[in-house]
Amino acid sequence: MTTAVDAAEQHTLAGDLEAAARIGAVDGGGISRFAWTPELVEVTQRVAAELERLGLAVETDAAGNMIGRWPAPPGPAVMAASHLDTVPRGGPLDGVLGVLGAVEAVRILRREGFEPKRPIWIGSFMDEEGSRFGTALFGSRAFCGDDVSAALDARDPDGICVRDAMRAQGFDPARIGDAERVDDVGAYVELHIEQGPVLDSRGERLGVVEAICGVLGYRVVVHGEANHAGTTPSELRRDALVGASRIVLALRERAASRPDLSATVGRIRALPGATNVIPGRCEFTVDLRAATADAFAGARAWFADMVSAVVADEALEATVECDYAVPPTPMAPQVIEAFEAAALAEGIEPVRMASGAGHDAMNVGRRAPAGMIFVPSRGGISHSPQEWTATEDCELGARVLASTLRRLAS
Amino acid sequence: MTTAVDAAEQHTLAGDLEAAARIGAVDGGGISRFAWTPELVEVTQRVAAELERLGLAVETDAAGNMIGRWPAPPGPAVMAASHLDTVPRGGPLDGVLGVLGAVEAVRILRREGFEPKRPIWIGSFMDEEGSRFGTALFGSRAFCGDDVSAALDARDPDGICVRDAMRAQGFDPARIGDAERVDDVGAYVELHIEQGPVLDSRGERLGVVEAICGVLGYRVVVHGEANHAGTTPSELRRDALVGASRIVLALRERAASRPDLSATVGRIRALPGATNVIPGRCEFTVDLRAATADAFAGARAWFADMVSAVVADEALEATVECDYAVPPTPMAPQVIEAFEAAALAEGIEPVRMASGAGHDAMNVGRRAPAGMIFVPSRGGISHSPQEWTATEDCELGARVLASTLRRLAS
Repeated sequence: MTTAVDAAEQHTLAGDLEAAARIGAVDGGGISRFAWTPELVEVTQRVAAELERLGLAVETDAAGNMIGRWPAPPGPAVMAASHLDTVPRGGPLDGVLGVLGAVEAVRILRREGFEPKRPIWIGSFMDEEGSRFGTALFGSRAFCGDDVSAALDARDPDGICVRDAMRAQGFDPARIGDAERVDDVGAYVELHIEQGPVLDSRGERLGVVEAICGVLGYRVVVHGEANHAGTTPSELRRDALVGASRIVLALRERAASRPDLSATVGRIRALPGATNVIPGRCEFTVDLRAATADAFAGARAWFADMVSAVVADEALEATVECDYAVPPTPMAPQVIEAFEAAALAEGIEPVRMASGAGHDAMNVGRRAPAGMIFVPSRGGISHSPQEWTATEDCELGARVLASTLRRLAS
Repeated sequence: MTTAVDAAEQHTLAGDLEAAARIGAVDGGGISRFAWTPELVEVTQRVAAELERLGLAVETDAAGNMIGRWPAPPGPAVMAASHLDTVPRGGPLDGVLGVLGAVEAVRILRREGFEPKRPIWIGSFMDEEGSRFGTALFGSRAFCGDDVSAALDARDPDGICVRDAMRAQGFDPARIGDAERVDDVGAYVELHIEQGPVLDSRGERLGVVEAICGVLGYRVVVHGEANHAGTTPSELRRDALVGASRIVLALRERAASRPDLSATVGRIRALPGATNVIPGRCEFTVDLRAATADAFAGARAWFADMVSAVVADEALEATVECDYAVPPTPMAPQVIEAFEAAALAEGIEPVRMASGAGHDAMNVGRRAPAGMIFVPSRGGISHSPQEWTATEDCELGARVLASTLRRLAS
């Protein structure tokens, strides 16, 4: 153990984050580290080397997930993980703080001379962001035994498919099923930046996630009648954009009246798209998120009714396609409580909140007791080179993670 | 005169319309006859030949406008005109009915043995639609002495400019000023399809235009803040599309409450345009039309105030650029009255209405007493192969035009 304790003295969380941010740094700002690329391999190997110095046995599974195991008596593992890949020109903390914070937690526990009674796993999931192939949460899905065979055929902008990208790095796509290890996990914890403005705007330092919001993704087409902008009187218009605008505002009003719901229309197009033609067709997307199963089901039913009512009132028609409907993932009460006790021991009163963004914990949380903590994102900014969290907040997150691992693995 | 009267027996309006519709007919439907193309030359020459058979002296001016002059004692001319060019895949009546209806009117007057006391001019203006070069109303602008020099440099999708297209047909762009002849016009009349649904939906057969609406064209950009759709709570959102949607609905409400105003948002785009990102920017166009000078000025002031109020209320900002502001063109009372008397003589009670669409009469009407009549567009459809007007309504329009020419040229 002496070697591992010495190793714990050589690295700091801030230093590790800085070193990681140089790998995949892009001219002009930001970091690009995508699935199955040399940059992601390099940063992952760096973390693996540090875990090995700390005395963990590191392996990479069939899906490219790196897992370091702290030797301990057998039993359900306590796993702390996140991801090391980024969005294009991403920031220095999204995902990587969760992995390097877990590494820092191991250093803290090593310094304390902690000896786990159950295995502690420190992990980095392959391809959380899906930036290269559109195959988000690939590694944690494989880890949970989800069928990722469709994702294997996805192609990047150069036409390379996941299957070939895996083979080029010595992985065998046919063995992807071997990555399923979730049944060995007794508790899962993840530290992440909030990626939203709630903690920062309220001056809070730590959030404990109660649930990861479910997401409903719709493509809506409102059908009206294209007509001459000058010659068609108001009472004879069937303007698809007018209907769409009413739907945008109804969504906003509904979300504003409920803290457990968010609604966003991010893309919109009116057709034929001429300045002097009444839109006969309007296409737009809807992103609806809800933190509880009730709110999720309620939002789904309300949305369908609301669209029908608006288009009927405007003598329009609409087609609504649901692209995805991922229900909310509640976090496990025992993990939430362990986080809260750990935070209080650090003198911090944490805030319970929902995660509006998706995370690997969403997949693991469907199969094992899981929890997440958030540290504040300055200005709520993420997926951007401007993404930032104060060093002392990152360190607080790592200390709470260490304390939680100690509680769960004692 | 015998020859001309005989010629009058050889053609019919329906036959002429049918023959014209074959020139520039496009595979798959519709008619494409653009400025300075062989198709437009061919149909124009066909009309010129018929006017010559009817005893008119035909010439083409420096801007490509074809004018047939009925010999008469000197004096301010009574001119009936419209255009023979079309939009891409346009219908068989927009513009061409006004020219061939005027030719039919000459045949009617010839059959009656009418001898004008003032010159009667039958005209076809070059490039009313602007389909090829984006240079709408080119011929009538040149006829009215407007500066069209900027239009001469406009290019079609193949990179050919108006100047070169003119030269290729033996026209001298340097002599474009010679086309100004509006001062010789004592009255201008134009028969056109309504291009809107008012007459058809009310079962009316003839509209007399009181004014051609003024048009305000705006490009609006609403500035908000792009943010994560999942992690940004309602109260911290500055959603540019929400602001734009309120503006769309405010425009609709205003136009619905005033018969003298129409408002259309035809193009809209939210940026960055991702399903899971709150729009930080929304760009859209606004087309506002008003029939009277008061309504035009009122709409302009109201629009600026309304946009300011909405964006202030939403903590957004907006930039509004006015691309064009063409005031309404009132039609001349004496021409309106001549049309009405002519219609009543045909046993038809005409409807007074505004023209929401622009026409060559808009340019001529600023310099000479002008008027227009509309016949019903089936379903209000125009700029489409489905554009249609019953033959008896076209013939009624031509008879009213003939009777009006007789009244004005007696």
